[in-house]
Amino acid sequence: MSNHTGEIKILLNIKQPSDVKKLSNGELEVLCTEIRHTLIDTVSSNGGHLASNLGTVELTVALHKSFNSPEDKIIWDVGHQAYTHKLLTGRYPEFSTLRKEDGISGFVRPDESEHDSFYEGHAGVSISQAAGVAAANAVKGSKNYAVAVIGDGSFGNGMAYEALNHAGSTKSKLIVILNDNEMSISENVGAMARYLAKVRAKPEYYRFKAGTEKTLKKIPIVGESLAKHLFRLKATLKNIIYSSSFFEDLGFRYIGPIDGHDINGLCEAMNSAKMVSVPVVIHVNTLKGRGYDFAEHSPEKFHGISKFDVVTGESFASGDSFSSHFGKTLCDFASKDKRICAITAAMALGTGLEVFSKEYPERFFDVGIAEEHAVTFASGLSAGGMIPVFAVYSTFLQRCFDQLVHDCALQRRKTVIAVDRAGFVGEDGETHQGLFDVSLARSIPNTTVYSPATYSEMSKAFYNAFYKDENLVIIRYPRGSMPENGESEEKIDDYAVIGNPNAEIALVTYGRLYFNALKAMDMLAQKGIEIKIIKINKIKPLPEGVAEEAFGCDKVFFFEEGMKNGGVAEGLACRLIEKGYDGKYSVTAVDCEFVGHASVPRLMEKYSMSAEKMALMIENEVSL
Amino acid sequence: MSNHTGEIKILLNIKQPSDVKKLSNGELEVLCTEIRHTLIDTVSSNGGHLASNLGTVELTVALHKSFNSPEDKIIWDVGHQAYTHKLLTGRYPEFSTLRKEDGISGFVRPDESEHDSFYEGHAGVSISQAAGVAAANAVKGSKNYAVAVIGDGSFGNGMAYEALNHAGSTKSKLIVILNDNEMSISENVGAMARYLAKVRAKPEYYRFKAGTEKTLKKIPIVGESLAKHLFRLKATLKNIIYSSSFFEDLGFRYIGPIDGHDINGLCEAMNSAKMVSVPVVIHVNTLKGRGYDFAEHSPEKFHGISKFDVVTGESFASGDSFSSHFGKTLCDFASKDKRICAITAAMALGTGLEVFSKEYPERFFDVGIAEEHAVTFASGLSAGGMIPVFAVYSTFLQRCFDQLVHDCALQRRKTVIAVDRAGFVGEDGETHQGLFDVSLARSIPNTTVYSPATYSEMSKAFYNAFYKDENLVIIRYPRGSMPENGESEEKIDDYAVIGNPNAEIALVTYGRLYFNALKAMDMLAQKGIEIKIIKINKIKPLPEGVAEEAFGCDKVFFFEEGMKNGGVAEGLACRLIEKGYDGKYSVTAVDCEFVGHASVPRLMEKYSMSAEKMALMIENEVSL
Repeated sequence: MSNHTGEIKILLNIKQPSDVKKLSNGELEVLCTEIRHTLIDTVSSNGGHLASNLGTVELTVALHKSFNSPEDKIIWDVGHQAYTHKLLTGRYPEFSTLRKEDGISGFVRPDESEHDSFYEGHAGVSISQAAGVAAANAVKGSKNYAVAVIGDGSFGNGMAYEALNHAGSTKSKLIVILNDNEMSISENVGAMARYLAKVRAKPEYYRFKAGTEKTLKKIPIVGESLAKHLFRLKATLKNIIYSSSFFEDLGFRYIGPIDGHDINGLCEAMNSAKMVSVPVVIHVNTLKGRGYDFAEHSPEKFHGISKFDVVTGESFASGDSFSSHFGKTLCDFASKDKRICAITAAMALGTGLEVFSKEYPERFFDVGIAEEHAVTFASGLSAGGMIPVFAVYSTFLQRCFDQLVHDCALQRRKTVIAVDRAGFVGEDGETHQGLFDVSLARSIPNTTVYSPATYSEMSKAFYNAFYKDENLVIIRYPRGSMPENGESEEKIDDYAVIGNPNAEIALVTYGRLYFNALKAMDMLAQKGIEIKIIKINKIKPLPEGVAEEAFGCDKVFFFEEGMKNGGVAEGLACRLIEKGYDGKYSVTAVDCEFVGHASVPRLMEKYSMSAEKMALMIENEVSL
Repeated sequence: MSNHTGEIKILLNIKQPSDVKKLSNGELEVLCTEIRHTLIDTVSSNGGHLASNLGTVELTVALHKSFNSPEDKIIWDVGHQAYTHKLLTGRYPEFSTLRKEDGISGFVRPDESEHDSFYEGHAGVSISQAAGVAAANAVKGSKNYAVAVIGDGSFGNGMAYEALNHAGSTKSKLIVILNDNEMSISENVGAMARYLAKVRAKPEYYRFKAGTEKTLKKIPIVGESLAKHLFRLKATLKNIIYSSSFFEDLGFRYIGPIDGHDINGLCEAMNSAKMVSVPVVIHVNTLKGRGYDFAEHSPEKFHGISKFDVVTGESFASGDSFSSHFGKTLCDFASKDKRICAITAAMALGTGLEVFSKEYPERFFDVGIAEEHAVTFASGLSAGGMIPVFAVYSTFLQRCFDQLVHDCALQRRKTVIAVDRAGFVGEDGETHQGLFDVSLARSIPNTTVYSPATYSEMSKAFYNAFYKDENLVIIRYPRGSMPENGESEEKIDDYAVIGNPNAEIALVTYGRLYFNALKAMDMLAQKGIEIKIIKINKIKPLPEGVAEEAFGCDKVFFFEEGMKNGGVAEGLACRLIEKGYDGKYSVTAVDCEFVGHASVPRLMEKYSMSAEKMALMIENEVSL
C-alpha cells in the first residue's frame, strides 16, 4: 500500500490508541506523514472525504495521546473526519476497503470498533451525545471524560446551540473541541461564522494579555466612578483578550484558539481542559486539506469526492446529474419569474445551486447547516410573496418534519422542497440513505409529492409546483444521473401505464426503479410473460387512476425504493382492499431496517429491486 | 360581559389597530385595564392561556401603536400570548367563544384575521418566519417591517438560534422583540436563561453609560499599549453597559432592557429600532400574570389552565390523568432502578414529572424548549449506561424525527420516549393535535411502539420498555384521564380479542378508542349484531396474531385516532392483502387533514370515532 507516496512503518505498529502514547515527538511527526499518505492513497482510489480528514490528523493524534478511549468517549460530529481515528484504533489493515461493501465505513460506527461511541453522519449532534455521556458519568460518579469534536459549520446548527445552552448550565466533565477550519461543507455563513473569523483574526491576543494586564495595573485611579467599574472592566478585558464571550455567556470555559497542527500545543490545551470543573470549549484552528496541495486550495471539491488522480487532482466523476439539472431548471424558471428564490443549508455545490447563487445572489440564501430554519424561513419568504425552493438531501429533510407540517403545510402557502439523494445513496451508508422521506411526506396534509424518473419529468414537476399545485410541494429525485437515453416518448403526467394496458399483471413503481421495471418487462416478454408497468409520478395524493389500473389486474407487484412502513405501496394496498380487490398483491421495499454502505446497484440487487430480481419474482409467481 | 370585574367601554370601540393609535395616554391605561378584565373573565370560563397574555397587554398595545399591521407583519412565537392582539384587531365581539368549536382560536390563525400572519403553536419559529418576510421585503424593495415577538423560553430553542445566526448576517428590516418574563412554561433553564438574568439584574447600566463615557474621556493616556487598546475597550464598554454581547456577537443591534409595562418606553424603543439598518433585538421585561394576583404568584399554574374560579383562583380540572400516572409509574421504577432518568423539554408540570424532579433531582433533566437536544441527550445518557425516559407531547415529538432515527434507533441502545397528548387534544387545535406520531414512529427501524388504553397497560408498557424490549421504545397515551372503571379484567398483552372470538365482524383499534369500541359492541349486541374487538396494545411491530385474527373475519373495521396515511390501519391492510384476504376492510381515521379546535368528544363524533358512529357504520355495512 501507499507505494508511490511513501513507506508506512510506524502506522503499521499502531494497534490501539495506547501505542500512540509511546511515540516520541519525532515519531509522531512521521506518523502524521504516513497517515496523510494513507488517506490520499485510499480516498483517491475509493472516493470519500478527504479535505476534512487531512485537516484533523494532528488533532486526532493529540486526542488519543491526551484521553483514554474507550473509557473516555471521543465523539465525532458528522463522523466524516474520523479516518485518522480509524487508523489509530486498529483499522489500518482493513483501511483499503474504505466505503466498500462489508468494508470499513466512511463514517463512525460502534459495530466497527469499541472506540466508535455512536453511529454518526448528521451534523450538530455530538455535543448532545457527549453531554448525555457526561451526565451519565456524573450520576455514576465516574471520572471519565466525554469529548465532542465538532466543526465550525456544525456550530450554526440549532441542536449544537441547544446542547451548549443546556450543558453550559451543568458541571460536567464535558469537553467540546471546536474544529475551526473556516468551512462547513460550503463556505461558512451566518453570524457565528463571522464571530469565529473575528476571533481567528486576533492571535495576537495571547501576547496582548500579559501586556495589557501590566498596563492596567499602572493606571492611576482617576476617579471614583472608574474604580467602581474596574472589576467589570477586568472581566471584560478577559473577554477581549480571549474573545470568548460567546461561549462564556453560554457557561463554558474557553481555551483557544490553538494551532490544530501542533500536537504538543493541542495536548497542553486538552490537559488544561481536564483540570477544569465546568464544561470547556477548546477552539482549534485547522486547515482543511492540509498536506495535499489540491485539497488545500479546493477544500470544497475535496470534501466528499469520487475516485481521483493523485497527481493531477482530477476527479473521475461525471458532471451530469439530477442535481445539476435541478440547478439549470431553477435558473430557467428564475430568469422568467422574479419570485423564485433558492435556499440551501450549506449544500450549494451538492444540490446543484452554484450557478443560481451567482446569477441570482439576491434571491439565493445559504442559511448554514440549519435545515429547520431553512424550511421556516422559506415559509416566511412565501408569506412575503416569493416562491421559495429549499434544496436538501433526503436524509437531512428528516431534520425538519415539524417545520414541514407546522410552518408550511398548515400555513397553506406555496413552499417547494427539492429533495436530492432520495432513495439509496450507496457508499455513504446508513446515516445517509434517503429512505424515509416518502413515509414522512405522505402523512402531511395539504402536500403534493412528485417522484420523477427523468430530467424532463423533474422539470415538469417544478412547473406544476410553481404554477399549478398549491401549498407544500415536494419533488424528490435520486443521487447521480438518469440512465442514458432515459427520456421516453411516452407522455407521462401524474402517472402512466406502459406496455399492454390489458395485461393482467401490473408492476407498480415510481422514481428511478422505473428503468429497472422497463428492463424487467423486456426480460419477461422474452419468456412470454406479458406485464404492464404502472409508473407513478405524483405519489401524493395518489391519483385515483393508479388504484383503478391496479384494481383491474389479477396480480400487482409494487417495488418501492424506500421504507415499506408508511410508503406508497401500503397506501395503495389500503386503497385496493377498501375497494374490495381480491387479486394478488406483493410489496418489495425496505422492510424496516437500516441499509448499510454498498454501491447503489448492489443495494438494488440486495433489496430485490434490480431488473433481474423484479423479473424473477414475477416469473416465479406466474408459474405457481 | 365582564360585569363583575369592570365595565368595557374603550375596548368596545377598537375595531382595528388604527383605533389604538388615536387614544390618549390616559385612555390607553383604561384600555389595558379593560383588556385584563376581559382576559380574566374569558379564560376563567373557557380555559386557555392566562399568565402569558396578562404579561403582554402593554407590549401588544405598543406594537399596534408603533407598527402598521397588516403591512408590517407582527409574528407571535407559539401564539398563545396573542389574546390582546386578537382584542385589538376586531375580535372583541367574538372573544367569548375563545377555544370553542367554530369560535376564536386560542392561537394565532390567518383565517381568523389578516392581522394574524402565520398559524402559530410551536416554539422558536417566529424569527425564521420574520426573517423570511423581511428577506422577501428586501427582494421586493418594500419598506415594511417584520416583527417577531418571542419569549425568553423559546430563545433556548435551536431554531431561534439558527434564525438569529442567519438573520444577524443580513441587512433586513427585522425586529425581534425578546419578551423576557423569566419563565418559559416551566421555570427557564440553561445558560441562556442565566445570561438574561444577568442582564436583567443590571438596569443601572443605563445610568452607568453616561457616567462611564465621561470618566473615560478624563483618563490620561498612560502609555502606548493602553492607547492601542482603547478603541477595543470602547467597543467592549458598550458591551458591558448594554450587556448585549451575545446578541451583538450574532450581528444584531441590541436595545434594552425595557420595562414591558410602560407603553411610552416601549414605543420609543420600537421607533428607534425602525431607524436602524441592521436587524434589532429589543429586550423587554414583562411580568407573567400581571394584574391578577393568583397568576402573578403561580404563573406556571396559570400558563395553560382549565376553567377556574376568578375569586379563589382555583381550577375546576381533576388531577387524575395519564400524565400523573406516568409520573407515579416512573417514580416507582426509579426507586428500584438507579439507572432510570427523566428528561423534559420545559414541560415538567404538563408531563407529570414534578414529583420525579423533586425526588430524583440528580436524574432529572429539564433541557429547556429543546426537543432535538433532549432526544440526543437521552441517547448519550443511554450510551453512559442509564435508562433515559424523555416525556414529550406528541405534537412536539414532531421536532425530533431525525434524532429518533439517527441518534436513537440507529444506535441500537435503549431509549424510551413517553409521548403524552397523543391523539386529539381538543381545544388547543391544529397546532397541538397529536395525530402524526404513529405515522412517524412506524417508519423507524429498531423501534417498538405501545399505545395503551389503561393506566395498568401503560405501567406494563414501561416495564417492557425497561426490561424486555431493546433499542428505541415509544409509549404513547392520550391527554386527560382514563374513563372511570376503565381497568378491565381481561389480560391484555401485545393485543387482545374481546367479545366472541368466533364473530365474523372485527372492530380493530388501539389506545383510548377501545372504550368507544366496547360501547359500540354493546350497542350492536342489542341489535343482534355480534362483533369482536381486536385491541392492539403494541402497535409496532404489529403482532402477527393481529393479522391472523383479522384474516379470519369477513368484515374488518379499523378505527384509528391519527393520520390514515402511514398509520397502523394501512399497515394491517397491506399485511392482509399480501396474505390474500378477500373480505371487507374499512378504515376510519383522519384522512390527511388538519383538525381544528373543539372538545375531544366533539372531534370523536366529527371524525366518526364515537361509540355511536362506530356502531352505526358497522350496522349499516352489515345490513347491506
